[in-house]
Amino acid sequence: MSSTIKKIGVFTSGGDSPGMNAAIRAVVRTCAYLKVECVGIYRGYEGMMESDFKVMDARSVNNIINKGGTILKSARCLPFRTKEGRQMAYDNLVKAGIDAFVVIGGDGSFTGAMTFNEEFNFPVIGIPGTIDNDIFGTTYTLGFDTALNTAVECIDKIRDTASSHNRLFFVEVMGRDVGHIALNAGVGAGAEEILIPEENLGLERLVESLRRSRLSGKSSSIVVVAEGDKTGKNVFELKEYVEEHLPDYDVRVSVLGHMQRGGSPSCFDRVLASRMGVRAVEALLEGKTNLMVGVQDNKITLTPISKAIKGHTKIDKELIRVSDIMST
Amino acid sequence: MSSTIKKIGVFTSGGDSPGMNAAIRAVVRTCAYLKVECVGIYRGYEGMMESDFKVMDARSVNNIINKGGTILKSARCLPFRTKEGRQMAYDNLVKAGIDAFVVIGGDGSFTGAMTFNEEFNFPVIGIPGTIDNDIFGTTYTLGFDTALNTAVECIDKIRDTASSHNRLFFVEVMGRDVGHIALNAGVGAGAEEILIPEENLGLERLVESLRRSRLSGKSSSIVVVAEGDKTGKNVFELKEYVEEHLPDYDVRVSVLGHMQRGGSPSCFDRVLASRMGVRAVEALLEGKTNLMVGVQDNKITLTPISKAIKGHTKIDKELIRVSDIMST
Amino acid sequence: MSSTIKKIGVFTSGGDSPGMNAAIRAVVRTCAYLKVECVGIYRGYEGMMESDFKVMDARSVNNIINKGGTILKSARCLPFRTKEGRQMAYDNLVKAGIDAFVVIGGDGSFTGAMTFNEEFNFPVIGIPGTIDNDIFGTTYTLGFDTALNTAVECIDKIRDTASSHNRLFFVEVMGRDVGHIALNAGVGAGAEEILIPEENLGLERLVESLRRSRLSGKSSSIVVVAEGDKTGKNVFELKEYVEEHLPDYDVRVSVLGHMQRGGSPSCFDRVLASRMGVRAVEALLEGKTNLMVGVQDNKITLTPISKAIKGHTKIDKELIRVSDIMST
Amino acid sequence: MSSTIKKIGVFTSGGDSPGMNAAIRAVVRTCAYLKVECVGIYRGYEGMMESDFKVMDARSVNNIINKGGTILKSARCLPFRTKEGRQMAYDNLVKAGIDAFVVIGGDGSFTGAMTFNEEFNFPVIGIPGTIDNDIFGTTYTLGFDTALNTAVECIDKIRDTASSHNRLFFVEVMGRDVGHIALNAGVGAGAEEILIPEENLGLERLVESLRRSRLSGKSSSIVVVAEGDKTGKNVFELKEYVEEHLPDYDVRVSVLGHMQRGGSPSCFDRVLASRMGVRAVEALLEGKTNLMVGVQDNKITLTPISKAIKGHTKIDKELIRVSDIMST
Repeated sequence: MSSTIKKIGVFTSGGDSPGMNAAIRAVVRTCAYLKVECVGIYRGYEGMMESDFKVMDARSVNNIINKGGTILKSARCLPFRTKEGRQMAYDNLVKAGIDAFVVIGGDGSFTGAMTFNEEFNFPVIGIPGTIDNDIFGTTYTLGFDTALNTAVECIDKIRDTASSHNRLFFVEVMGRDVGHIALNAGVGAGAEEILIPEENLGLERLVESLRRSRLSGKSSSIVVVAEGDKTGKNVFELKEYVEEHLPDYDVRVSVLGHMQRGGSPSCFDRVLASRMGVRAVEALLEGKTNLMVGVQDNKITLTPISKAIKGHTKIDKELIRVSDIMST
Repeated sequence: MSSTIKKIGVFTSGGDSPGMNAAIRAVVRTCAYLKVECVGIYRGYEGMMESDFKVMDARSVNNIINKGGTILKSARCLPFRTKEGRQMAYDNLVKAGIDAFVVIGGDGSFTGAMTFNEEFNFPVIGIPGTIDNDIFGTTYTLGFDTALNTAVECIDKIRDTASSHNRLFFVEVMGRDVGHIALNAGVGAGAEEILIPEENLGLERLVESLRRSRLSGKSSSIVVVAEGDKTGKNVFELKEYVEEHLPDYDVRVSVLGHMQRGGSPSCFDRVLASRMGVRAVEALLEGKTNLMVGVQDNKITLTPISKAIKGHTKIDKELIRVSDIMST
Repeated sequence: MSSTIKKIGVFTSGGDSPGMNAAIRAVVRTCAYLKVECVGIYRGYEGMMESDFKVMDARSVNNIINKGGTILKSARCLPFRTKEGRQMAYDNLVKAGIDAFVVIGGDGSFTGAMTFNEEFNFPVIGIPGTIDNDIFGTTYTLGFDTALNTAVECIDKIRDTASSHNRLFFVEVMGRDVGHIALNAGVGAGAEEILIPEENLGLERLVESLRRSRLSGKSSSIVVVAEGDKTGKNVFELKEYVEEHLPDYDVRVSVLGHMQRGGSPSCFDRVLASRMGVRAVEALLEGKTNLMVGVQDNKITLTPISKAIKGHTKIDKELIRVSDIMST
Repeated sequence: MSSTIKKIGVFTSGGDSPGMNAAIRAVVRTCAYLKVECVGIYRGYEGMMESDFKVMDARSVNNIINKGGTILKSARCLPFRTKEGRQMAYDNLVKAGIDAFVVIGGDGSFTGAMTFNEEFNFPVIGIPGTIDNDIFGTTYTLGFDTALNTAVECIDKIRDTASSHNRLFFVEVMGRDVGHIALNAGVGAGAEEILIPEENLGLERLVESLRRSRLSGKSSSIVVVAEGDKTGKNVFELKEYVEEHLPDYDVRVSVLGHMQRGGSPSCFDRVLASRMGVRAVEALLEGKTNLMVGVQDNKITLTPISKAIKGHTKIDKELIRVSDIMST
């Protein structure tokens, strides 16, 4: 491939997700394979503004495919939202001879990259790294699969103790705006009810459903709740509400929290990261820009970043129905 | 839904795979939800020939979604390959009032079901339960994702000891006819080489590649080998061959074996099983037959069993290329 | 062994812990081996008062050694604290022909057993099943080892995301009165600080230590906090306090919660449960009573229940020192 | 502490085991804490002979407590067995100003250290790092607990598929000379039989026991076999023998192999490594030498290396008995 691009930067940005290291590795190794230089940029846009760069070769990424987190660190960077901040970043990239970059992150990071591209005509390609699976143009974001396994393994453990004591647990999983983790982890963990931001079951129906569930002979109940559920109550208030209306229930709460972002990535996420990293570098060398690498129908695709961040990923109605049937 | 089908049988057949229990649960609960009776048939066709039946309701499948193996047991059944055997099975089903069945298994089991359907005009729907991912009409078979995670976790551990001693390991994974596990687990584990039935790299190229890998500064090497690789040598003979040609290598072998079939299913497999189980029962009640439930582009689909067992799942050329680049 | 005891009851009581099922299995199989009848009592003392009994033979406990929770369920039972309640329980045991029982639980359950023994001269042996490791007369309680692994695996995941963002996390683990989980999981997870009920580090020293830790070049910090720590602040208040005093810190909280009680037991806990279960039955058949089975210096021992519940398990000063040195 | 020792070397030697990194970290951080210099020696005695040294400070060992393998690499070194080899190593240590070393390894590595100490009056302390648990003077060697968990998790998975097909599996675990892994993992996995080097059950009794096990209603059987078992047959020959004598059995083999040496260490092994590392450095600074750090009755102890390598760790007769009873 002949290309005007000789040196590619790579960084992770926003909330970290499992598989980011595998994606960094893929970008670095693809550069090495295609004889393009590669530079790691630490702490995302923040490091870009501070010239926190490090040249990387194929050996720099040994033994990281299975590591959670990101060796390049991540950050949320406010100054980059200003024109001055971006100018400083651009100057640093130029000074370091970096011709293009691959950004691994979520929609906030993509918005920054798109603006940067428009202002400086700088080639950028995005890889969707977030556990939330809320990016349009890809069936799976990097880290979603691993986060589901983490959530489900935790809920399995909670189920053990719930069953032993005939208890009801509210388990909060991540997802401020979207319910993908809650819905999939809920179905995977055999939850009796799943509360997501996209649907408001209503508190009366929740109580009714839990009552029915107990009558049907179930000894324990798990309700999986997305952070951003729409009942108007947080998970601790839900507990109180249910205890009030179902006084013979022994109700507990568990908030899974940040562990959902960590851990060794699943094989699925590692393979996905490898495929996406290869495509990202290739796309840049083909002269493409402002695109996000995604996976659709098990094929690697490219979607305009502008669409990726504006489009909506809709909750899967079929899966909501499956969830209802499974909690019979 | 009004349907002539009042009682549905469900069984697992052939090699077991993680997620089979989740699929059984989904079939049973969907029957309960749709007010159709459900009967578990033990040990596949064998149990069908011996009337080894058990009525199942929604509570019969509590707490199995996360269990490996199959509570209905599985078997490979030779007598069912005869007309007499199938007649006996049919008579037993009729006697028990079973109108249709859902078979969870691989292509051998599907072939039996198709023949059975043709002979007795008996409604059958298949759910692809096998770790090999070798069924046409579905991007993923049930258990494939879990088997990949199991394989990759094992290889991660082997990598630890390989790196500590600068060793080369040949790791054999399952896959007699297809290399999907080897290719995906190989990429996921960061293997230096992957040997699959679909491609014959050639022994000289293997040795050459391993030599290059060491020169490039890698301290350890993992070669993932599918059972049915086409080098003409088994994994122990490969070890000897490499030791002969690369005498300063310390080479070891690990055969992962049957543990790849077991273990708690991943969230991916549990969700897939739930969706497939719902669709299987619904399809029967819609009057459909001789179809396999699959997942394509993240949507649940139906494919004629005749196509599913005859079609070829091709190895992913793009992923082979990714693998080559990643081992830079 | 000739003994007047012909039928032994077994139950789990109080908070459940991993390994309880393995202990039940061991008691049941030892009874089968020694040709004594065995009866499972559901829901602890509650089931005893309601004659919720089930005869168990060697096959009743197949495939439970690796399961979390307790197949016999558990409960905390207030009525058993009255003389009338205990009389009812006793009458039920006599009616069922049960001559002795093995109680698997913590100090509350042991107190009940001891009182019962004194009032009715009924032979009882205890197995210490609790994740807290707070029972005198045994180096390890059943479930402690598994709970530590669960906690440490969670904190490893939190560390991934903490390192990626240079964050400080307060992680709350179980332990209302004792800090064994916090201290061991903290050392195992490489925590920078560990707050336990047995020691009050003082908030100033905590802040000072965290400041030093950052200056020493650590990019992230984990503080493990036992539920019952003595700072006078809960984990959320600690977060606020530190944010106030170290304003450039990004501080988060994670409460591990009930998942620490569940999950498949570690090999250590399974072996310990098996050994304890054997000894418990043997002790009863030897005519012993009012004793707790423990493990000390890797040998199975017997300690009077009266001592087990009154004695103190002291926090390991050497391990506190190790923790201080490790956070250098 | 005032001491003539100003610089301590640390290395790992022989077969690697989980927890070695945690022990390296503990040695390095204790040196930092006590203001002694610390030097990592790569590849054990081999690196010592080649001056493959690296100065280490507290930050050199960040984030390794949870990693399998050893960052210092390991090797078996023949030339060190000669006087010339050891002289070269000694000269290198003196040149580098290293006054003493901590060796983390098994009995072969300890023998080398003892000889070295005797020849050059060089202070040495050993930490028992081996999964085999075959060192006298410590109840647990570093890595044993993790290896047991790895083995048991694998056998749990094999049990899933064994139960689904009513099969018998021979599972080979590590242990050429000692059966500690086989016995403990066998009990932990609920194996029907356990074959260890210390006892020869006899093939007839094995067949008889398996026959009885099936008759008792068990649907599957697991026989755990130590590498060095004394039946005179390897695990594949055992399979053939049993198939011949129990023709209606479906028998399979699984050799767990090197994955038992890898993986993230359990909390138990991490804590043990931390305690041992602290004590090792302290012992050197107290002027002690030729001792091995161990754990006995949950207290850290020191044992002459000469005893550690000569003494026998006996197989636990009580645990053999527990195993017999459990397979009822």
